[in-house]
Amino acid sequence: MVTTLVKRQIRQLIDNRSSTYTYLVWDPNSREAAIIDPVREQVERDLKLIHELDLILKYSLETHIHADHLTGSGLIRESLDCSIGVHTNAASECSDLKLVDGDNISMGEVKLEVIHTPGHTNTDISYLCDGVVFSGDILLIRGSGRTDFQSGDPGQSYDSITNRLFTLPSETLIYPGHDYNGFTCSTVGEEKQFNPRLGNGAQRDDYIRLMQSMKLTKPDRMDSAVPGNQACGLVE
Amino acid sequence: MVTTLVKRQIRQLIDNRSSTYTYLVWDPNSREAAIIDPVREQVERDLKLIHELDLILKYSLETHIHADHLTGSGLIRESLDCSIGVHTNAASECSDLKLVDGDNISMGEVKLEVIHTPGHTNTDISYLCDGVVFSGDILLIRGSGRTDFQSGDPGQSYDSITNRLFTLPSETLIYPGHDYNGFTCSTVGEEKQFNPRLGNGAQRDDYIRLMQSMKLTKPDRMDSAVPGNQACGLVE
Repeated sequence: MVTTLVKRQIRQLIDNRSSTYTYLVWDPNSREAAIIDPVREQVERDLKLIHELDLILKYSLETHIHADHLTGSGLIRESLDCSIGVHTNAASECSDLKLVDGDNISMGEVKLEVIHTPGHTNTDISYLCDGVVFSGDILLIRGSGRTDFQSGDPGQSYDSITNRLFTLPSETLIYPGHDYNGFTCSTVGEEKQFNPRLGNGAQRDDYIRLMQSMKLTKPDRMDSAVPGNQACGLVE
Repeated sequence: MVTTLVKRQIRQLIDNRSSTYTYLVWDPNSREAAIIDPVREQVERDLKLIHELDLILKYSLETHIHADHLTGSGLIRESLDCSIGVHTNAASECSDLKLVDGDNISMGEVKLEVIHTPGHTNTDISYLCDGVVFSGDILLIRGSGRTDFQSGDPGQSYDSITNRLFTLPSETLIYPGHDYNGFTCSTVGEEKQFNPRLGNGAQRDDYIRLMQSMKLTKPDRMDSAVPGNQACGLVE
């Protein structure tokens, strides 16, 4: 019997304007692939790379409805006939898959498991794939996503992070939706210990108070980005 | 007999101002580590991460004498007592290791092999480590480093890339010294096929002509960066 070691391949991409991370994940055997959080301004780059890597793009997946940039999902689907997946709370009519906690997304022998991790928004999904979690904006490196708009909730954020993500094995790699300090990834073990908001047993009440005390300005493009992203980025 | 699979760990870091990539590489068993191309403005961040990851930093290594930013190597050595390694052509008196082609740098059971790949400068080193090559500025993703200063030479650049890097196995991951388009890594196979300057059998004469025809402006900080980096970044 020949045993083939299946390993998912991952490519991290950056949109420098919005400091957004986009990910390609694929099964090297079948070449079936998903893109997570594509950015509209980068669609041409991403389509070219998908073509060069000889991938069969099956899915364009959102970690949530973004407020700071427009998704590239709609344009990518126009080119490659993939399925757009977003959490069912997003009420996004243009999407093909209304995802809920526990759903599995298959690319050949590679699986992405949907973990509903609300708190930054009510549409947050973390995608777990063979020792790696794509955490979107709920858990950032040494930080966490703001909780003051789009049905964000600091208590839910704390619960999602501590009950769902911090219960994964310590060595699980974390690939976030953004970073502003030049970090590209982290691990569950690191964030449990060193995340200044959540590490070393920070209490729920303290976290809620901290998140509520932040005086953050509204993202520049929020008023157009949220409805634009509910429309899969297919707006003027 | 118990076989332990030794795998090098890698962490990619970004300096957004100069679009420079810094890398931490370590042996997960011994925790011995090297940092490749640290940036002076990011030393505090990098030292904190090294501490949090519980690493024993043995080396701070340069892929070349940089012209666009100041290295953090000198400041890192002041904190962590590591050895600074740079190619012997750099004539950098402050460095501890004058590296030449074929040298091996050991961190526990992990080895970095020095490949002299001149062409961008005469001090270019690519570091090869267990299926990954840190290519500095000689080979960039879908591009290559300019060859018009610091003893750069387009013919040498072509030879270094095609004879030394493109002869590595196709699946070898390439981690470059910079990227300006949001790519984080590539593979030898991809660059052999899709690098517009070098892919698909581009000829040496064409490459030389192309590189010589570029009208590039001098990097802003070059006049201070080059002597500053020969001094391990320890300048005002």
